[in-house]
Amino acid sequence: MAPGQLHLNVFVVGHGHHEAAWRHPRSATVPVTDVAYFQRLARRAEEGLLDSVFFADQLIVGGDAGHRPRGGLEPLTLLAALATATERIGLIATASTTYTEPYNLARQFASLDHISHGRIGWNIVTSWARGAARNFGLDQPIPHDERYARAFEYLEVVTRLWDSWADDAILHDRESGRFADPDKIRGARFQGRFYRVHGALTVPRSPQGHPVLVQAGSSEEGRRFAAHHAEAIFTAQQDVDEARDFATDVRRRAAAAGRDPRHLKILPGLSPIIGSTEEAARRLERELNELTVPEVGLRHLSARFDGVDLSGLPLDEPVPLDALPQPSEVQGPQSRARLITELVRRERPTLRELLYRLAGGRGHLVVAGTPEQIADRIEHWAGAGAADGFNVMPPYLPGGLDDFIDHVVPELQRRGLFRKEYEGTTLRDNYDLPRPRNRVFAHEETTPPPRSSS
Amino acid sequence: MAPGQLHLNVFVVGHGHHEAAWRHPRSATVPVTDVAYFQRLARRAEEGLLDSVFFADQLIVGGDAGHRPRGGLEPLTLLAALATATERIGLIATASTTYTEPYNLARQFASLDHISHGRIGWNIVTSWARGAARNFGLDQPIPHDERYARAFEYLEVVTRLWDSWADDAILHDRESGRFADPDKIRGARFQGRFYRVHGALTVPRSPQGHPVLVQAGSSEEGRRFAAHHAEAIFTAQQDVDEARDFATDVRRRAAAAGRDPRHLKILPGLSPIIGSTEEAARRLERELNELTVPEVGLRHLSARFDGVDLSGLPLDEPVPLDALPQPSEVQGPQSRARLITELVRRERPTLRELLYRLAGGRGHLVVAGTPEQIADRIEHWAGAGAADGFNVMPPYLPGGLDDFIDHVVPELQRRGLFRKEYEGTTLRDNYDLPRPRNRVFAHEETTPPPRSSS
Repeated sequence: MAPGQLHLNVFVVGHGHHEAAWRHPRSATVPVTDVAYFQRLARRAEEGLLDSVFFADQLIVGGDAGHRPRGGLEPLTLLAALATATERIGLIATASTTYTEPYNLARQFASLDHISHGRIGWNIVTSWARGAARNFGLDQPIPHDERYARAFEYLEVVTRLWDSWADDAILHDRESGRFADPDKIRGARFQGRFYRVHGALTVPRSPQGHPVLVQAGSSEEGRRFAAHHAEAIFTAQQDVDEARDFATDVRRRAAAAGRDPRHLKILPGLSPIIGSTEEAARRLERELNELTVPEVGLRHLSARFDGVDLSGLPLDEPVPLDALPQPSEVQGPQSRARLITELVRRERPTLRELLYRLAGGRGHLVVAGTPEQIADRIEHWAGAGAADGFNVMPPYLPGGLDDFIDHVVPELQRRGLFRKEYEGTTLRDNYDLPRPRNRVFAHEETTPPPRSSS
Repeated sequence: MAPGQLHLNVFVVGHGHHEAAWRHPRSATVPVTDVAYFQRLARRAEEGLLDSVFFADQLIVGGDAGHRPRGGLEPLTLLAALATATERIGLIATASTTYTEPYNLARQFASLDHISHGRIGWNIVTSWARGAARNFGLDQPIPHDERYARAFEYLEVVTRLWDSWADDAILHDRESGRFADPDKIRGARFQGRFYRVHGALTVPRSPQGHPVLVQAGSSEEGRRFAAHHAEAIFTAQQDVDEARDFATDVRRRAAAAGRDPRHLKILPGLSPIIGSTEEAARRLERELNELTVPEVGLRHLSARFDGVDLSGLPLDEPVPLDALPQPSEVQGPQSRARLITELVRRERPTLRELLYRLAGGRGHLVVAGTPEQIADRIEHWAGAGAADGFNVMPPYLPGGLDDFIDHVVPELQRRGLFRKEYEGTTLRDNYDLPRPRNRVFAHEETTPPPRSSS
């Protein structure tokens, strides 16, 4: 990794990533639907020169709204509202290939890329939750492998739609009355196993050509998908060696798929619990953990293993090794199930300790320490080839983001690891990624002509 | 209609409504994807105290991009970008009940209503174009009557989802750890002929309860739908008596459906071609008409009649009465087909004259005149009970909007027909519509408790 090339997103969840963040006095008490609050967070992240703001998504309320914040703004409409409040920072939203028509998704993302002048990314998910399936006319989620088969086809459709206008299709020639060159707008004419889309997109080709493609699945199919399509990977990793193995594997797969592996940024999640001393950071972590409600953590853990019943396990005894199903049999995200299983095997925590471990980052790395200690960990992982940067998950908000920007970012800049100004204006510029060529018009592209505007 | 109660939207199309607007020197030369341009238009309309900005939508590029502006921003993402640039004006976008999953549509509109603090409206369309069907996996559009059967069911699902959180569901009580009252979040549990949606929405109930429901179909099924669901109707009318008959009919139907007919605002389209003298206005209209390209108008006319071939008709001879199919056999919007057929029968125009008539407003009323003459027409229609206001369609932009706001609005204010300040902060306030009760929690509603924010 070249110096100064570290990539840092902030992954924003309402009151912060710690399960009990909303109960802690340092977190905001704003309603989950307050757009001005999210705009302030995005502007703050932009002041810190972060690469992007990232939002997850769920197509289900979740059953534990009694004990944790649920509900909020829909990510694509939120992204548009943030695009108009910021200028340089990237904006990444999650959307599902399983429950949205490709024509609708393609045009909303293309439109967002225009609205933001090229700062949009799409975190591609395939939606494993049963509750989500039942909100879209199904009884059960589509099985893991078929979801990915659909996702491959979906990407083929959506990228064709994004390429359905040549960059120089629009002439806007008042004099001759020629608005566009019809030969430079071409229908997708796609007919696959799962999708059929005939026409061109209603949105002209966007500033980035395609929004940046992000992916977070780490199962076998997830890695195969990422190797073909992803330009950034969000991944949950607890251990630097395992993280490096993962990074090496997906880079090798990308190269095997004919891609430049530098065009795939690997960004593990990192929840930094920052204190002026290590003791202060650990105290804050304890405070947050002690505000958790065990039912919430148990429900979350159970959901990661297809709903296995854990209610009989005592909280303060080690988790039995056979209490959790085999990860390979899980229909949800298998990599997260594997990570949790290995954590149980390696550390033999009590159930309460395991719930605390997951309360901070739901399986992502949690580091409690001083700004220097956090920077050390970032530098170590980056230097070891385990990460091109991090998806920063503030434990509480807005303070956890403020602390990271005020104390960790300057430390990384002093070490020559992070930018001191934005390199460009698009998310592709921030991530140092190329603009994709238009594959539909690959053999016909010329440089765009000057716009006529008599 | 009470004095001061006229409702005026601006219906925005990129360079203006006249088919040749983009070629006229008075229109903007901005790209069709320039969000800042649309933000300026929305702010200008807000300065003029208009009720709302309205955007149509198409799920197909259209075949005449060679000769007229095509492509643009997707309406829902655009609306979010306008919501953050304005404060009081309503924002209405078109979306289809045929090609979007109800769960996706419900949460995007609810989210927009939060982002805009209660200024969103949904123009409900059922999508008749064959090209649109082919972008969503079908060979042919769903037939007219089945589209409406689906639309009825769709509205039932979507409104249940909007009501799936009680207004007072969120407690945000840090002390007790109770975020929400789970009994006040209830799954839609909907199982119909076309849709099945089990869970609650991911978005808490929005400021308006439901976004304002708008509808534009005027066929038998369209009127039946409007009588049940619409709170505003956009309609194309050429004649004040026919417009009054239409208004009387839908008001009667709304009353028969158990609704207060005052809660259904009838807003015909009106394209005002404004000049300082009548002669100047007529000259501008001629200039615009003479910039049209006949193929564009012919293609549009043909599309209104399921693609009938009109290419053999001479431009400067009267349109034969049998050249167009019977409106009742048309699968697209029947009311527009009927309007055009009646115009041909009544006025016996040449084909070129008919194309000119349709170039200005595609069947909507076009009035060329001085600001006073335009205000006269508005006053006459409103006084006759033919309109609660108008959907103003500037022939070219931004100048056509500026002229309306600078000259027609003050004239209407002088006559006591239009507001001098906004009455409230939501689109429902602008339209003088009630906030719908939550039907899911109808028997349990209390006034929302004060928000806990320790």
